[in-house]
Amino acid sequence: MLPYRFFSSRLTPNASPNNMKTPSTLDELIEALRCLPGVGPKSAQRMTYYLLQHERKGAARLSTALANALSQIQHCQKCNSFTEDAVCALCASPNRDASTLCVVEMPADLMMMEQTQVYRGLYFVLMGRLSPLDGIGPKELYLERLIKRATDGVVKEVLLATNFTVEGEATAHYLGELLKEKGIKVTRIARGVPVGGELEHTDTGTLAQAVLERREVS
Amino acid sequence: MLPYRFFSSRLTPNASPNNMKTPSTLDELIEALRCLPGVGPKSAQRMTYYLLQHERKGAARLSTALANALSQIQHCQKCNSFTEDAVCALCASPNRDASTLCVVEMPADLMMMEQTQVYRGLYFVLMGRLSPLDGIGPKELYLERLIKRATDGVVKEVLLATNFTVEGEATAHYLGELLKEKGIKVTRIARGVPVGGELEHTDTGTLAQAVLERREVS
Repeated sequence: MLPYRFFSSRLTPNASPNNMKTPSTLDELIEALRCLPGVGPKSAQRMTYYLLQHERKGAARLSTALANALSQIQHCQKCNSFTEDAVCALCASPNRDASTLCVVEMPADLMMMEQTQVYRGLYFVLMGRLSPLDGIGPKELYLERLIKRATDGVVKEVLLATNFTVEGEATAHYLGELLKEKGIKVTRIARGVPVGGELEHTDTGTLAQAVLERREVS
Repeated sequence: MLPYRFFSSRLTPNASPNNMKTPSTLDELIEALRCLPGVGPKSAQRMTYYLLQHERKGAARLSTALANALSQIQHCQKCNSFTEDAVCALCASPNRDASTLCVVEMPADLMMMEQTQVYRGLYFVLMGRLSPLDGIGPKELYLERLIKRATDGVVKEVLLATNFTVEGEATAHYLGELLKEKGIKVTRIARGVPVGGELEHTDTGTLAQAVLERREVS
């Protein structure tokens, strides 16, 4: 066997770009998969080979599902969540209490709120949170739509149910100030020790808030 | 505020399935995304919301790329790799040495081999490796196609370039036995200390192999 140096200068003509290229539809699929959050070039390549080798049916289904979702899913005119109709089923329901409006960050949060079965008002989904570092300000969240919705005369209380993360708290604070100016009652979901939680295993920040926000036993 | 117990029994009628349902095209997209390797229900939901909110263009592109790849990509009749034609550009090239056949696990490995620019023969891509625990045996890898290809009279040497993992080594061993029976010269890419590697930082297994497979200095 000859050393590597020998070959690398001599054999370059064999490695013509035409020989080394992957098929362009394959390259395009690898590139297209990178639009998914958290998918880099290596995982995109792995996914492409996997789909073509083992999941052709799944890939066809995904292609159709993407096209259908893009053509049919829009934002609800009232709550801003995803829906196939102009106004979503929840907003259109006559069984909901229109005087309360719950503000959540994402549709997944709305689902969680619904699963508690204790809230019967309507929603507004921000589709994000204030995050100046990521370039998401009041304008990107379409907050003027929320303000318009909250000041329609029917809404009496706005319940802020954004996350208790730094950004979620900042969003709640900002919205609270904005809505109180308009004379609307603003509430925030409670912080405290989780149901089933033991004091010994609760972090001090949460426990401190639970003490500060203690309520009288009736 | 009333305790949770109170509401949970009383307010169930409000949580009608109709109100709580996400749009079906959204559900279908979440479900379809789960065909991707390593994507569970939570990431599928996150991806769906992300695509619809921030990457509608990317999602449209992905939908088309998937459809195009599925309709146009097939296995090369000679090397079994992915191609848009019956025989891939590399197999069809007159500049390649048809007397050597390099066996690799995946198309990505073929690309790596090409990048070394020291190999000018042809390839056979297994599209996997022997892995009895995952139900991948000689039949699933279409090894009879490889045997037929290697015994066509033109191939004089088969270079086994499967990975040096347990499964890659087992595959190489199995193929080696099979091909030697047919009277074909079988070689395996060398194990040893990597280029630029220091002995102090080389694992003992690799160093042991480098000693066992030492060669005479010419």
